[in-house]
Amino acid sequence: MPRVFSGIQPTGAPHIGNYFGAMQNYVTLGEQFGKNSLYCVVDLHAITNPAASDPRELAGRTFDMAVANFAAGLDPAKVVFFAQSHVPEHQELSWVFTCLTPVGELERMTQYKDKAAQYESVPSGLLMYPVLMAADILLYKADTVPVGDDQTQHIELTREIARKFNHHYGETFPEPKAVYNQGAVRVPGVDGHGKMSKSKGEASTIGILEPLDSIWQKLRAAPTDPQRVRRTDPGNPEVCLIFDYHKLFSDLDTIQLVDVGCRTAGIGCVDCKKKLMEGVTAHLEPLQERAEGLRADPDYVRDALRQGAQEARAIAAPIMDEVRHKVGFLKL
Amino acid sequence: MPRVFSGIQPTGAPHIGNYFGAMQNYVTLGEQFGKNSLYCVVDLHAITNPAASDPRELAGRTFDMAVANFAAGLDPAKVVFFAQSHVPEHQELSWVFTCLTPVGELERMTQYKDKAAQYESVPSGLLMYPVLMAADILLYKADTVPVGDDQTQHIELTREIARKFNHHYGETFPEPKAVYNQGAVRVPGVDGHGKMSKSKGEASTIGILEPLDSIWQKLRAAPTDPQRVRRTDPGNPEVCLIFDYHKLFSDLDTIQLVDVGCRTAGIGCVDCKKKLMEGVTAHLEPLQERAEGLRADPDYVRDALRQGAQEARAIAAPIMDEVRHKVGFLKL
Ligand code: SF4
Ligand code: SF4
Repeated sequence: MPRVFSGIQPTGAPHIGNYFGAMQNYVTLGEQFGKNSLYCVVDLHAITNPAASDPRELAGRTFDMAVANFAAGLDPAKVVFFAQSHVPEHQELSWVFTCLTPVGELERMTQYKDKAAQYESVPSGLLMYPVLMAADILLYKADTVPVGDDQTQHIELTREIARKFNHHYGETFPEPKAVYNQGAVRVPGVDGHGKMSKSKGEASTIGILEPLDSIWQKLRAAPTDPQRVRRTDPGNPEVCLIFDYHKLFSDLDTIQLVDVGCRTAGIGCVDCKKKLMEGVTAHLEPLQERAEGLRADPDYVRDALRQGAQEARAIAAPIMDEVRHKVGFLKL
Repeated sequence: MPRVFSGIQPTGAPHIGNYFGAMQNYVTLGEQFGKNSLYCVVDLHAITNPAASDPRELAGRTFDMAVANFAAGLDPAKVVFFAQSHVPEHQELSWVFTCLTPVGELERMTQYKDKAAQYESVPSGLLMYPVLMAADILLYKADTVPVGDDQTQHIELTREIARKFNHHYGETFPEPKAVYNQGAVRVPGVDGHGKMSKSKGEASTIGILEPLDSIWQKLRAAPTDPQRVRRTDPGNPEVCLIFDYHKLFSDLDTIQLVDVGCRTAGIGCVDCKKKLMEGVTAHLEPLQERAEGLRADPDYVRDALRQGAQEARAIAAPIMDEVRHKVGFLKL
């Protein structure tokens, strides 16, 4: 059976782009592969550039990411969900891989070059990041890695590190494959400027845990088809982000009704947005209630993370024993 | 009370240069500071360049280094003696420090530049090595680090990393100081060419666990004062490595007797070497017998290393808890 590993950045509350992209995919994969699907909140990666992260917030964001995923339908009892810093074997394996990876290969990573260009003094964590990522995956001999397409080069490096280890120390690791979430749509930002992204700030995103009235304020202010100046002008839903959102949140009847209504000026934009808000509410209200319940029971969340870390370590233990033996560390 | 940390490379059997340099110093410091003196066989550093180390030998060399030090008088019950790979907190802290250290600072390390110049493709372990070394030391909040003077720059980097962590995450680590072993002599190689060094090969070194007849063969062949061509020529002990060895192995009476005898041609070189061999035997025979005894009782050595790793982890545990909390990892 394949083994799935995916890292989740603990960077602020997830938005509906994350939800319809990665998070729903986790739920699906989790149902398919059960305890062979590992989801890891990568808090070690979050400190890669200490100047850009606030240590007083990191623990809370790690906790919130667990809450958000559990609320979105990931059942910690059915998958392995944990935080990276609770499984020190990640760093242990990372050192072994560091010794196998030429500096030049890391310097050639596109993401590193892009980020390094922004700094006067480049933190080594930025350079070594893809090595830790390779350790994240191979620590579990995972072969299936759901990622965004910006991670293609890092997965290729992971495969290269697996080959190098196998060559130098004997056949040990599979060469994992990236899987891109086919169903995932590129959710547009609510400000109408390109893809929804945390890096563009709150105004462009709709958080899955955002209060519904705050979401409504954003939707109300969102741009629609600029050709529809008057209520009586027909519009083109294909150029309107509200219609994109309908495709995510509304049922087929509503989508069709909006499609036709827009083109024939049968529906106004405010009504169209209200209809959307019904779908959003139907989707997010129960999710937010579950999140509320989880927040009110932090022990449940902590226990789930503790259990997840134990399960992850149990999978990693024989693999690390094998690594330690092959690398030549003395067994006591 | 100060806390001492010293790393011991598991690179082949120690020679009398190591013995009169580092190893006797460990014994002295151990008597002074007891469980506040930590000695760590740095097997993680030994894989820094996998192409240069044989994984089939590493475990044996780690074991042998424990045997050699215990035989030389270091009592594992009185100090903390352990192998680095048995304390994964070393790598855990190393990642935190990696994120705090600019790539440029590591590239400027003299030892890195020297070694990197020898490779087509430079392993990242060579670059990151001083960061792991900083973690080795600061994991125990050690403030006193006995090292060779080739490590001055790395200790300075360790101090810099301590300052950076304290600045970014709040006062945590001391700034450790290098201590150079004042009493340590630069032991000349038995081939007469400069300092005794493993890197020059077996022929230049006298191993502390080397069979005594093998040592005698090397001493017999060793060059002496080249001015003493005939037995009747007076010599100058100050230019003779045999006299340097006498100062290490012989008692004061013998040293004086050889000094005068050489200058007056009262003693021949062969007799002088035989007298030296008596001192060598008196020193190394009991040491080698202890080593024999330890080898015959591998469980004792393994238990000592297991106990040492437990003691090291017990010292590291509250320090890592402090680090994890300050860095912002979620506590379960
Ligand atoms: S009716 Fe709906 S789909 Fe058409 S332009 Fe207005 S908001 Fe967009
Ligand atoms: S007598 Fe001894 S000290 Fe003098 S030259 Fe010979 S070996 Fe060296």
